[in-house]
Amino acid sequence: MANLHIHGGDVYRYPHVLDFSANCNPYGMPEGVKKAAKDAVEKAECYPDVECSRLRKALALEEEIPYEQIICGNGAADLIFGLALALKPKKALLLAPSFAEYQQALQAVGCEIRYHYLQKEEGFIPNQSFIDAIEKDTDVVFFCNPNNPTGVLKNLEYVQSIAEKCRQCGAFLVLDECFTDFLEDPKSYTMKPFLKEYPGLFLVRAFTKKYAMAGLRLGYGFCSDSKILAQMRAVMQPWNVSVIAQAAGEAALKERTYVEETLGKIRKERKFLLRELEKREFQIYGSEANYIFFQGPEGLREKCLEKGVSIRDCSNYEGLGNGYYRIAVRREEENERLLKVFDEIEI
Amino acid sequence: MANLHIHGGDVYRYPHVLDFSANCNPYGMPEGVKKAAKDAVEKAECYPDVECSRLRKALALEEEIPYEQIICGNGAADLIFGLALALKPKKALLLAPSFAEYQQALQAVGCEIRYHYLQKEEGFIPNQSFIDAIEKDTDVVFFCNPNNPTGVLKNLEYVQSIAEKCRQCGAFLVLDECFTDFLEDPKSYTMKPFLKEYPGLFLVRAFTKKYAMAGLRLGYGFCSDSKILAQMRAVMQPWNVSVIAQAAGEAALKERTYVEETLGKIRKERKFLLRELEKREFQIYGSEANYIFFQGPEGLREKCLEKGVSIRDCSNYEGLGNGYYRIAVRREEENERLLKVFDEIEI
Repeated sequence: MANLHIHGGDVYRYPHVLDFSANCNPYGMPEGVKKAAKDAVEKAECYPDVECSRLRKALALEEEIPYEQIICGNGAADLIFGLALALKPKKALLLAPSFAEYQQALQAVGCEIRYHYLQKEEGFIPNQSFIDAIEKDTDVVFFCNPNNPTGVLKNLEYVQSIAEKCRQCGAFLVLDECFTDFLEDPKSYTMKPFLKEYPGLFLVRAFTKKYAMAGLRLGYGFCSDSKILAQMRAVMQPWNVSVIAQAAGEAALKERTYVEETLGKIRKERKFLLRELEKREFQIYGSEANYIFFQGPEGLREKCLEKGVSIRDCSNYEGLGNGYYRIAVRREEENERLLKVFDEIEI
Repeated sequence: MANLHIHGGDVYRYPHVLDFSANCNPYGMPEGVKKAAKDAVEKAECYPDVECSRLRKALALEEEIPYEQIICGNGAADLIFGLALALKPKKALLLAPSFAEYQQALQAVGCEIRYHYLQKEEGFIPNQSFIDAIEKDTDVVFFCNPNNPTGVLKNLEYVQSIAEKCRQCGAFLVLDECFTDFLEDPKSYTMKPFLKEYPGLFLVRAFTKKYAMAGLRLGYGFCSDSKILAQMRAVMQPWNVSVIAQAAGEAALKERTYVEETLGKIRKERKFLLRELEKREFQIYGSEANYIFFQGPEGLREKCLEKGVSIRDCSNYEGLGNGYYRIAVRREEENERLLKVFDEIEI
């Protein structure tokens, strides 16, 4: 239990600390989203719409995905747990390291998990051996692109090969695209165009990171197989997405300027941080999204905390030992403060 | 699928209709709760506190239950689903009719459900035969007191007998006390004092009804067996309770005057509605909480809808046929409007 809920972003145990451990948009929740969320409080005396109709209609337009292929959840995690319960897989294949909730959700339904350990020597880059590891008895495969926490991105050809192998083996593919929004060219990396071709594919998305609304809880997913979505609804509570989250999500989709401007700034800051970390001779593995994964001295998190900055110690990820860290890309002055802290620590 | 999510309170399919189908406090969300919820939007850029620490501390004081015996959820339904997944029971015993989500949550984990059908001739009142139906192979029993939708209340002696029989049979007891708040004397009916005596007892509670905050999603539960709570946390996503819900819950617990005043008014209105319904020769079965369960002519819901009022048609509850309805007790003028509609329909 003690280690179960160790994640980034625990501002409750560490208040007054500059948080680089969670990967949300550092420019904060757009004012339009805040307003919609606050206005929605007045309507929260009623139960939420179990269909999330308005939000799904807005998502259908924005994402160019049919309304009936969209499902919303109490954060992306809710959908991951819902999928595990709906599919009830017996054998799963996971990358290690990767997002810890895949494992938790699968264990919750008693699924046997095989880990495909990414190799430090190979830069934690998934290759053909992962695809080969998908076998006839594999029921479900989880793949996160770009991967969390490593920040390693694979091209669409590779992801398609995974989908193809999954189809051959009768395995369901859960593809976590929660961080594709932060890529230079998200459209070239999403599997959205292949949803129809692969009914055994579920794409996981979230509002959390892009719009800095982690505390409101809103994720969504796409699947072209209506049976899978029906199975999910059958095993999930009907009122999982709050009135506030539904309204906030609808408003968020209108925030085009905010998204364009802040994502541009984050990409610029990412390059700055990368250059600076390289100067300091950190071993960097991946940084394709809005976070950077690197190897550093043991105890770095504790030393940073002493100086008022929180970074993600990744040692509790399956497949990682001590000395691996993830930092979010934040605003210019904040990134400079982090670098200053690193310099003071004299790594 | 089509019938899966038919519930009361669907104001989205029926806007501009006076809603008697959901059982929330008709006096609306307290201003203090609204303010706390709106203020919390500013903090919702961060992930929620996975421990719900502040809220649980406030609940511990208010409910006089140890902090570590309290768990919070995304509505009471979240806890019911979490319990089913944590316990993974093979055989369950349910009352019929009762809250539909017990069945849904149990089916989600493949549990075999035996229904104990309440008899119309016995006023839908559970008796010794329900206790006798708890057998050696029963893994879990769900009991709702007062029951939803019937509004039938059993005394503490009876509920204790259920707990005792469950203990003898090694069955876990989930006791839904979501509506005890509305009783004349809640303290005489809660099993709170017996939590320690029965580690295999889980009490389900919610903010939803008492504070009219259904759209914010906040439920909680008590159990003295730390293993059960640990099992639940292991199978539920860590961030299930939003920043908004946690803040709103904390604020709600301070609303003593609101609770006292509005619950008093609801009890008064309940008596008025009961008298009026009796005059109209409805067959009333139960009304101990803030809703009244009765038998009426078929098609009553549709006829009420035509006149701008929504009541709960209970025919989709397991164990009920056509002609059973549930109405919430609302404000004086609203209740009068409902009665007027009933009179116009010429039942």
